[in-house]
Amino acid sequence: MRTEADIASLFAEIHGRVAPRAAGKGDVADYIPELARVNADRFGVFAYTLDGRAAGFGDYAHAFSIQSIVKVVTLTLAYQRMGERLWRRVGVEPSGGAFNSLIQLEHDDGIPRNPMLNAGALVVVDVLLELFDDPLEEVLRFLRETSGNPAVDFDRSVAASELATGHRNEALVQFMRSYGNIRHRRDTVVGIYCRLCAIAMSCEDLARTFSFFAGRGRSPVTGARVVSQPCAKRMTAIMTLCGFYDEAGEFAYRVGLPGKSGVGGGIVAVHPGEYAIAVYSPPLNRKGNSVLGRYFLEELTTIVGESIY
Amino acid sequence: MRTEADIASLFAEIHGRVAPRAAGKGDVADYIPELARVNADRFGVFAYTLDGRAAGFGDYAHAFSIQSIVKVVTLTLAYQRMGERLWRRVGVEPSGGAFNSLIQLEHDDGIPRNPMLNAGALVVVDVLLELFDDPLEEVLRFLRETSGNPAVDFDRSVAASELATGHRNEALVQFMRSYGNIRHRRDTVVGIYCRLCAIAMSCEDLARTFSFFAGRGRSPVTGARVVSQPCAKRMTAIMTLCGFYDEAGEFAYRVGLPGKSGVGGGIVAVHPGEYAIAVYSPPLNRKGNSVLGRYFLEELTTIVGESIY
Amino acid sequence: MRTEADIASLFAEIHGRVAPRAAGKGDVADYIPELARVNADRFGVFAYTLDGRAAGFGDYAHAFSIQSIVKVVTLTLAYQRMGERLWRRVGVEPSGGAFNSLIQLEHDDGIPRNPMLNAGALVVVDVLLELFDDPLEEVLRFLRETSGNPAVDFDRSVAASELATGHRNEALVQFMRSYGNIRHRRDTVVGIYCRLCAIAMSCEDLARTFSFFAGRGRSPVTGARVVSQPCAKRMTAIMTLCGFYDEAGEFAYRVGLPGKSGVGGGIVAVHPGEYAIAVYSPPLNRKGNSVLGRYFLEELTTIVGESIY
Amino acid sequence: MRTEADIASLFAEIHGRVAPRAAGKGDVADYIPELARVNADRFGVFAYTLDGRAAGFGDYAHAFSIQSIVKVVTLTLAYQRMGERLWRRVGVEPSGGAFNSLIQLEHDDGIPRNPMLNAGALVVVDVLLELFDDPLEEVLRFLRETSGNPAVDFDRSVAASELATGHRNEALVQFMRSYGNIRHRRDTVVGIYCRLCAIAMSCEDLARTFSFFAGRGRSPVTGARVVSQPCAKRMTAIMTLCGFYDEAGEFAYRVGLPGKSGVGGGIVAVHPGEYAIAVYSPPLNRKGNSVLGRYFLEELTTIVGESIY
Repeated sequence: MRTEADIASLFAEIHGRVAPRAAGKGDVADYIPELARVNADRFGVFAYTLDGRAAGFGDYAHAFSIQSIVKVVTLTLAYQRMGERLWRRVGVEPSGGAFNSLIQLEHDDGIPRNPMLNAGALVVVDVLLELFDDPLEEVLRFLRETSGNPAVDFDRSVAASELATGHRNEALVQFMRSYGNIRHRRDTVVGIYCRLCAIAMSCEDLARTFSFFAGRGRSPVTGARVVSQPCAKRMTAIMTLCGFYDEAGEFAYRVGLPGKSGVGGGIVAVHPGEYAIAVYSPPLNRKGNSVLGRYFLEELTTIVGESIY
Repeated sequence: MRTEADIASLFAEIHGRVAPRAAGKGDVADYIPELARVNADRFGVFAYTLDGRAAGFGDYAHAFSIQSIVKVVTLTLAYQRMGERLWRRVGVEPSGGAFNSLIQLEHDDGIPRNPMLNAGALVVVDVLLELFDDPLEEVLRFLRETSGNPAVDFDRSVAASELATGHRNEALVQFMRSYGNIRHRRDTVVGIYCRLCAIAMSCEDLARTFSFFAGRGRSPVTGARVVSQPCAKRMTAIMTLCGFYDEAGEFAYRVGLPGKSGVGGGIVAVHPGEYAIAVYSPPLNRKGNSVLGRYFLEELTTIVGESIY
Repeated sequence: MRTEADIASLFAEIHGRVAPRAAGKGDVADYIPELARVNADRFGVFAYTLDGRAAGFGDYAHAFSIQSIVKVVTLTLAYQRMGERLWRRVGVEPSGGAFNSLIQLEHDDGIPRNPMLNAGALVVVDVLLELFDDPLEEVLRFLRETSGNPAVDFDRSVAASELATGHRNEALVQFMRSYGNIRHRRDTVVGIYCRLCAIAMSCEDLARTFSFFAGRGRSPVTGARVVSQPCAKRMTAIMTLCGFYDEAGEFAYRVGLPGKSGVGGGIVAVHPGEYAIAVYSPPLNRKGNSVLGRYFLEELTTIVGESIY
Repeated sequence: MRTEADIASLFAEIHGRVAPRAAGKGDVADYIPELARVNADRFGVFAYTLDGRAAGFGDYAHAFSIQSIVKVVTLTLAYQRMGERLWRRVGVEPSGGAFNSLIQLEHDDGIPRNPMLNAGALVVVDVLLELFDDPLEEVLRFLRETSGNPAVDFDRSVAASELATGHRNEALVQFMRSYGNIRHRRDTVVGIYCRLCAIAMSCEDLARTFSFFAGRGRSPVTGARVVSQPCAKRMTAIMTLCGFYDEAGEFAYRVGLPGKSGVGGGIVAVHPGEYAIAVYSPPLNRKGNSVLGRYFLEELTTIVGESIY
């Protein structure tokens, strides 16, 4: 069994091997001005195992915009309370299309194909507004508790930047409302959604938080049960099928772990029963996933020889 | 650990529980006359574990038309020899559409989204025609060896029935040829494809054959390595993402196992490191998957409390 | 040549012939509560010929909500001032899809296929906001002048009703803004659009207004040139190809006249060099066109033996 | 009124004006090897008026491959005998898509949107096979009679070339057969279709043949009624809406005449009550229409100041 030091040096070794392949590939997300300002050269990775080993490499303590990674957390909170009734308003099938497409929505009468698409995540926010007085505060509380980092917060300038350019999200909200699948005010839904996407966390924070999925609902960090085992299993299944936009197949094929990416450059992945890992590198491929992040995870599961398959 | 007798009685118990829920639901495939003639009331299930336990219930020895299940086998044979070059001609992404759709093909210039769609499987047959003198014989040889049943063969009347009604498959072949993605003669490609789909196997045969995926490439039946570990892992990933048409997400969410269904009513599923299982019940839901088969596997993984997630 | 009295009795005769065929067919538009309250049994028709004959039958003096018919007028005003530059922001091709679809927009990067679709008409409103201080007042002024009816106005309760349910139009505006094809404020664009659609006119008003298209730009009512001949010709071509949503082909085939329909139940049609005609009957077929209105025009051009073809 | 000499010199003048604009634009069709061999510099135009004036310019006597222009003729022959029943198998709506797309077909259960698409024209050939022992011979007889040129025939090498590369057409046929909308043998339908497209005619031939549409069913060449007035009117309406693939709107907007183009470089257009005109220039724009041909007709209707609008 690898010690924490072994893991850290394995990470360094893998980084040394894959960084040259990623060099010059991908572009930092630029559709939100604030995101375009990040340092494209940063790289961080952090893993947390079920038996409590923790190891990182690079900028693993640097907080970045988690963006779509938050969709897994909002979904988990909504599913915990709504249960199977949630699926009346959003599906669990991979979409075969881009993350902000409206085409599928029109074919399916305003029901998003899955909760990892922007449309689906907006419906989940609408659901959270029925369940909580302050969904944003609830998500932050959840992330602070599970990561053990009480300083987790959203970045006001990123949130403002997203709001100012969020026309497509407003279009999605009003389009779904025309089918009766959004109930709260447009500005409320989009406002909370933009703040949620602007939450900043480090690789270490993310690996700690997502470790409860590896623990099938119980956090190896706190020892506490966070969600039931069936809930953990189901969220993990959804990450596998829908976590990487229209590159989910490629990710399953090459990496073999459930996970979720964000256009901030982060990817978090989970090996149920084993560990959670978060990796960060801002340049994205044209599907919106971190180039170096995916290479790193691919090399890792190849070397370790383990995946969920 | 459950004995073979325990497993058999668990299967009986699960069947007793889910059969009433499935009663009256679904329809036997009728687009091929020969398939429409099966006895809709048959039910069989068989599992083979990595440590050699084997147990079944019901009509597990009854051979039925495996249909699309064969696509996993043809893909495995093509990938073993072609390796990554294969993906120049077919993708690995879930399609979000029906199994015989041409729409996606036109968007993607004749490259099928994945090899579990009819279009993708036809490309794989075209590839096998370059690799083997007689791809049908090669597949049969592979199935006989891995299942340990030398009598595995295709059903001539089903194959003839498929050929006589296979206009859509001819359309797919000629459409892909117009993009340069089919190289062999139309009648040859479609003829072999129809015979492959008409292969008849029992649940027991299928569970034994697919147990090498559970064994990460090594068959627990024969002890021999059938494919490399990376190959087994990759085929399993593709089954997870693409094995159930546009119900892949639902299957991952409810069952949590990689697998493949066929319109003959069979489903085969794999828990890597644990077991392979095949279940048979002809009535299909409108996505083309066995109604009772899915209910059975869902109940099984819920009771056993184990899945890949 | 038919006298005005001949024409009026021809209208009565045609109505007697086609009304039974339309009986019980179609539904009054109900997506806007105010529109659902109209009397479904009303029927009116009015024609105005180039040589100044005018004749009507039924409720031809009853003002109704012109809805999408206004799109021809807004387009004419925008084209008159912008000329060919207008086509950078909207196309002239039939869409082959529904009037409020977003699918095409996504394929074409936010450029609506034509100005008779809601999306295209919203872009035209955005253009008018650059050209005029008060586009609504400008359109009303134009309609009052060309119809000779100074009382033409919009219906405040219909406009309010449209605004309250106009989520889809807001979605279209924000979606196009995400592609840079809308420049003014969402509420301004949608607000003016809803008021424009709520303009109320009678068949007589509409036939008089549209007679300048029959006069190839010169109004037979006032004798004044309203638009240039090329402008009249081009607007008429667009009506022919795009004036009846995805029933444009059917309308050209059966009626053979350029025209435009509205979900209020009105249809206006033009025979260049001959006459303009407006017909009104609220029940719509599932493509959104007046059932009895189309039957009436079809019978008229069949009896008269004249169309543009 | 212009004399024949006036018309010929008008044609020369227009050619002189628009040829420089078209220089270097467009490409000769190359998907069929035989078509790629034509001389791209040829230009011809010929008009035939209702009162018997005939005038041409350039290579108007040069026979070229009429390609899709034949679709109007096959449709006319099928409609003459089948009447309205024909529309159970093919629609009359513009498609909004490319001429050989399969996407629309799948949405509409195998019913082509209109008879000017390849799919629709193949259905029409299937219909002709029910109506005539030898549809090819029937079409040739019709063309020879209406053009007054007994030498009209198809080009065997073009037909062979089309057959050898007609995979997409075979795909369309088998796809529609899977919906029950093709009844005759694949090779028969595609074989006749390819020969029909390979028919060679000159601008003079085409203008003479299509003059019966200008004559509302009666040929000014022979004085004989070719089809009924309603039939002529309906075919002309279909040409207007569907005659130029997904450029029908552009053509109506700029030229204002019903017509039909072919990838051989020909365009035929009709002004009902006035004249028929055919123009030929091989380089095509990316929608498949002759670049110089469209420019010529646009300039012509602008100078003459007449169109159907």
